[in-house]
Amino acid sequence: MANQKPTLHTSLSPALLHLYDLNNATVVIIDVLRATSTIATALFNGAKCVIPVDSVAKCIELGKQIDGITAGERDGKIAEGLKHGNSPFEYPKEFVGGKTLVLTTTNGTKLLHMALEKGAGQIITGSFPNLSAVCDYLLAQNHNIILGCAAWKDKVNLEDLLFAGAVINKIKDNFSINCDSSQIAETIYCDAKNDLFEFIKQKNASHYHRLSGYGLEKDIRYCLTPDIANVLPFYEDGKLVVHKR
Amino acid sequence: MANQKPTLHTSLSPALLHLYDLNNATVVIIDVLRATSTIATALFNGAKCVIPVDSVAKCIELGKQIDGITAGERDGKIAEGLKHGNSPFEYPKEFVGGKTLVLTTTNGTKLLHMALEKGAGQIITGSFPNLSAVCDYLLAQNHNIILGCAAWKDKVNLEDLLFAGAVINKIKDNFSINCDSSQIAETIYCDAKNDLFEFIKQKNASHYHRLSGYGLEKDIRYCLTPDIANVLPFYEDGKLVVHKR
Repeated sequence: MANQKPTLHTSLSPALLHLYDLNNATVVIIDVLRATSTIATALFNGAKCVIPVDSVAKCIELGKQIDGITAGERDGKIAEGLKHGNSPFEYPKEFVGGKTLVLTTTNGTKLLHMALEKGAGQIITGSFPNLSAVCDYLLAQNHNIILGCAAWKDKVNLEDLLFAGAVINKIKDNFSINCDSSQIAETIYCDAKNDLFEFIKQKNASHYHRLSGYGLEKDIRYCLTPDIANVLPFYEDGKLVVHKR
Repeated sequence: MANQKPTLHTSLSPALLHLYDLNNATVVIIDVLRATSTIATALFNGAKCVIPVDSVAKCIELGKQIDGITAGERDGKIAEGLKHGNSPFEYPKEFVGGKTLVLTTTNGTKLLHMALEKGAGQIITGSFPNLSAVCDYLLAQNHNIILGCAAWKDKVNLEDLLFAGAVINKIKDNFSINCDSSQIAETIYCDAKNDLFEFIKQKNASHYHRLSGYGLEKDIRYCLTPDIANVLPFYEDGKLVVHKR
């Protein structure tokens, strides 16, 4: 058959993930503000690995056991009992190089564990700072793809949709896309791509307001910048490590 | 307070409806292809009422009891055991005038019953054929609003999103909208509004393909035409009736 391209679907919320067949698919976990941007940044800056955990208690316990950096947020702020937050700027080379980051976040790590439970074939994480690394990997693998948006407490959000749209825009010719969510994501991305930050600000994105209220405009600009931490976080044996090409 | 506007949210799938507070809100059930377009049409053409039921068995039973027209689809085709389908063209004045339509559909009637169970303050139905009637009612009521997309088996679809966007585009100045799904819907609607049919066709909307495969392009064009069956279906006492202004 000439036209046996693998499929691509976009899940706009963790509450929709069950609608898609994750077996034998590569699932891209997308939590642009800020978990997957921070994961790419920590690995780009030389962290040994990032261990995503789904509760603050586990984060503290594991952090002690392995002498790791405990980090995470709940509702956009550093979670009580943890040492560090979810900002990419907290993880420069000098601090994170050679270390293990134990990370728990409101939406991103939750989605990753859901994907695991639902039998995802492979799991990688994506955000604008590693856009090209994600696209290169997906093109090279040529597997079925689920772009999994972490959203905000299951509510669809603009920034994760935009990243899904950016990926689709770059790789769509190689995949069979019969998925309205993917079409919506790419259409919005094309509207926004000339100035992603301004687009999100203008559209009153709920998350923009939440974070900019905490003085995190700088974080938002960073998290929307393509390819400034261009590594591929790949999940294996319970941790995210840089995928070797 | 000067700025106490009621809120507006968009639920892109029945699987997301639980995220929104339906109490005291007006819920707009949106199933553009084709349930809510057909409901508006039947009522516009003089049907006494439309009784939405959630199973084919109930549809048949109730149809017998009240001598109503049994209608409905499963997977886009007339459901086995029912006399009529889900096409607006099946319900001209001569046929439906004065009659009761008992209707069951894959997505739309299911969502309506979910909204009921979750305690919706009021339920109306919307689609392009009654766009203005919906907007006029929402502006006059000035209640909190949930635009509830019926989607396709819980997967987000383009046509319901487009209708949500059309409503938002017309009434947004009167509501407080802190909801990314609503921003996404309006942005896509603005991209599409010059030719909704062409937009849906170009974007390969999954539902377009499903229906156009059954020779229903004429239905799709009708269901995307604003205000050609401009009544307001209002749910009370178990049935949808025309709301008297």
